[in-house]
Amino acid sequence: MAKAPVLTPRAVDYPRWYQDLIAKAELADNGPVRGTMVIRPYGYGLWERMQQEMDARIKEAGARNAYFPLFIPQSYLTREAEHVEGFAPELAVVTHGGGKELEEPVVVRPTSETIVNEYFSKWVQSYRDLPLLINQWANVVRWEMRPRVFLRTTEFLWQEGHTAHATYEDARDYAAHIHRRVYADFMTDVLAMDVLLGRKTASERFAGAINTLTLEGMMGDGKALQMGTSHELGQNFAKAFDTRYLSRDGGRELVWQTSWGSSTRMVGGLIMSHGDDNGLRVPPRLAPVQVVVLAIREDEAVLAKVHEIGDRLKAAGVRAEVDDRTDTPFGRRAVDWELKGVPLRVEVGPRDLESGTAVLARRIPGGKEPVALDALDALAARVPGILQEDQALLLRQSRERRAARTADVSTVGAAVEAALAGGWARIPWADLGEEDEAALAEHAVTVRCLVAEDGSVPDSDDAPGNVAVVARAY
Amino acid sequence: MAKAPVLTPRAVDYPRWYQDLIAKAELADNGPVRGTMVIRPYGYGLWERMQQEMDARIKEAGARNAYFPLFIPQSYLTREAEHVEGFAPELAVVTHGGGKELEEPVVVRPTSETIVNEYFSKWVQSYRDLPLLINQWANVVRWEMRPRVFLRTTEFLWQEGHTAHATYEDARDYAAHIHRRVYADFMTDVLAMDVLLGRKTASERFAGAINTLTLEGMMGDGKALQMGTSHELGQNFAKAFDTRYLSRDGGRELVWQTSWGSSTRMVGGLIMSHGDDNGLRVPPRLAPVQVVVLAIREDEAVLAKVHEIGDRLKAAGVRAEVDDRTDTPFGRRAVDWELKGVPLRVEVGPRDLESGTAVLARRIPGGKEPVALDALDALAARVPGILQEDQALLLRQSRERRAARTADVSTVGAAVEAALAGGWARIPWADLGEEDEAALAEHAVTVRCLVAEDGSVPDSDDAPGNVAVVARAY
Repeated sequence: MAKAPVLTPRAVDYPRWYQDLIAKAELADNGPVRGTMVIRPYGYGLWERMQQEMDARIKEAGARNAYFPLFIPQSYLTREAEHVEGFAPELAVVTHGGGKELEEPVVVRPTSETIVNEYFSKWVQSYRDLPLLINQWANVVRWEMRPRVFLRTTEFLWQEGHTAHATYEDARDYAAHIHRRVYADFMTDVLAMDVLLGRKTASERFAGAINTLTLEGMMGDGKALQMGTSHELGQNFAKAFDTRYLSRDGGRELVWQTSWGSSTRMVGGLIMSHGDDNGLRVPPRLAPVQVVVLAIREDEAVLAKVHEIGDRLKAAGVRAEVDDRTDTPFGRRAVDWELKGVPLRVEVGPRDLESGTAVLARRIPGGKEPVALDALDALAARVPGILQEDQALLLRQSRERRAARTADVSTVGAAVEAALAGGWARIPWADLGEEDEAALAEHAVTVRCLVAEDGSVPDSDDAPGNVAVVARAY
Repeated sequence: MAKAPVLTPRAVDYPRWYQDLIAKAELADNGPVRGTMVIRPYGYGLWERMQQEMDARIKEAGARNAYFPLFIPQSYLTREAEHVEGFAPELAVVTHGGGKELEEPVVVRPTSETIVNEYFSKWVQSYRDLPLLINQWANVVRWEMRPRVFLRTTEFLWQEGHTAHATYEDARDYAAHIHRRVYADFMTDVLAMDVLLGRKTASERFAGAINTLTLEGMMGDGKALQMGTSHELGQNFAKAFDTRYLSRDGGRELVWQTSWGSSTRMVGGLIMSHGDDNGLRVPPRLAPVQVVVLAIREDEAVLAKVHEIGDRLKAAGVRAEVDDRTDTPFGRRAVDWELKGVPLRVEVGPRDLESGTAVLARRIPGGKEPVALDALDALAARVPGILQEDQALLLRQSRERRAARTADVSTVGAAVEAALAGGWARIPWADLGEEDEAALAEHAVTVRCLVAEDGSVPDSDDAPGNVAVVARAY
């Protein structure tokens, strides 16, 4: 009898594969309140590493962390008309506090532009205070009708940046800087994900923005996932909250603003980018554990050896962990590390000690290689190079997938066909009328973003040569 | 005319001094919803450093981070009788989500024991899964009637640890380990605060705990502040949520648990421990900025020099920052860094370049020293030692304050007198009856904790020789 697969294979049922993987790799559980999630230690470890890498890039971009309250007076939301229209249907509302009904209900933040502007109005006095570059790591709540763990959850964790600038150009450039130098670099270099940088069309813009820049990743089933967005807010919130500064020539000017966010949704993107039928594959630069050293059986010499190997690898700057839980069968543990996507496993048993050669299992390309146990220096010297190779391989596979599954088309019918077949279609934006967008929508296909003819991010929706990239999306 | 003080002096109005300092050092603002706060970048920088140091110690203690939902079904809270009684009056309740009234209202977590146990019940199967050691960094909400920034806020940030163990002894020892090796070490070594380790009396215990260990700090006005607590939960939550494990001999046993928390309240403790009439004094090991190098005036050579000094210090592993904002008067910037409590300032102007000697201002002991500008290596070599000295000085001052202001007394009257005079009183616990506690309470004086005769933490409330430490408290 063939061994039953650990996960539902992707080809059989992709959504079920995704759910299976999250459960069996112990990444997350569904929470008791509909749409919420419990992020388990291994899943949270991935998020912590994302936070570290992202936080360093955000600080490098000059922003400083702060913290704004979870509770926002309902009246704040209504000050910016488009904003409230966009978020009102998703709000969670606190009506009682401390045993009493509240005079004014408060909403649980769905995002913080309004409350941030209330304070920016106080903090920004003169041009000397600009640019004001703030970021916060926080939880937000958007009531979710069709929740899916990591991808669409009622509560999620994210970072949200909020900035104020003296000029339109400065704000525009900063939003673009975050888009490219923070988000795209992080997703490409750390997550090993090929992301398409583009501009959202008016109908897909953030509620209250004048421009939304997006990063779209192609998942294993060819659907798109929005991995992060960076918005130019223009002066919309500045007007609503009267956020002004004293200019060098004595005028009281409205500031220009940006906001930008990336969330635990990226964990879902990671799974669907790199996962295979055996589980997750974690890019080495992200991996909380890059190498796990397993003792196959309880044996004094084996235990001594796995700890020696672990120590050598740690000394070489590798994030290594020893698995000496020999009261759990080796096979089960190996499958578990495979599910969790740890890039490398060194497996050591009594027979390996005798033969002087253990096994190095490579999760990312697959396959096994021998490790000479009398040459651990050589192993420690070799591992960083292997990890780099594997990191590069994941990015290459991600690039190849998008290249192979993106089609240039000239009709809406062909675009729908490409999207339904599990891919993206590129179609001249000028050829897409309102009726065409409606035709796409019938098949749950949307314009993910616009890109310029040369592949860059267009300056406007209507720049000549703009291409619309259409797909089904999570 | 004498210069107006920057802050209301402590001796004039201590609470007002505290508020002034928080506003002028730009640590935090009051939020729009009563009792909430906005933590500004400099204040948040202190909290980030606390998180880093605490997180490293928590991981060293074997716990792993995870994340549980913000929203808890109301019914969970009611499963543990004492717990719901303790928290019901402080709950914020969400009654509407996604535009509809919810079938079951959800509460915003005031703490997470209930929802954590719901999942521990699923995750813990056998003795192999124990101990299960989890921590989370999160926001919590407790509706606050008498809010005070950092000290008592409706929403605050904290870490909450939750663990499950096979035996009573293992749980007890872990709670004690967190108390001493994580909390006390962090507060003493990093915050430079002398904290008293003790045991709460039954009436001051966490709602649902069988024992609460506390760390009490003495503030500048002689009041006490509870800086953190570590609880033995016994099997109370395990019973309520049926959290059981399969033991080695095949039984289905209830787990023994702990929980422990420390919060943004520590920022308030830091201010009131080390602050003086000129502002905050930040212990060097905590300080996000240990040395600020100021350019006194706009001048090419001066700017080159301050950056050179900043680079030298950074290369020596010092957290240094350059302040070259010469469009703001030097005096204002110097006062601002003084308010923010940065331990060292190197001040460089054109005349200093001529004389070859700049000024090193020491915030913690006060006073200024010369710095030879042609011997920056000597400066870089000297600074780490100065920072160590200053760290030690703050801890010594904190210890001396407690020693000087703690009195051994034998009557309730004398205890009240000592507390009202701004100090702590030690009184034999066996001498304090219920009536006496009521008499203390009339003056808002409480038993902060019990300590054993030899100063250690007692194993029980009624151990012979137990001493009650009483004080007014924040």
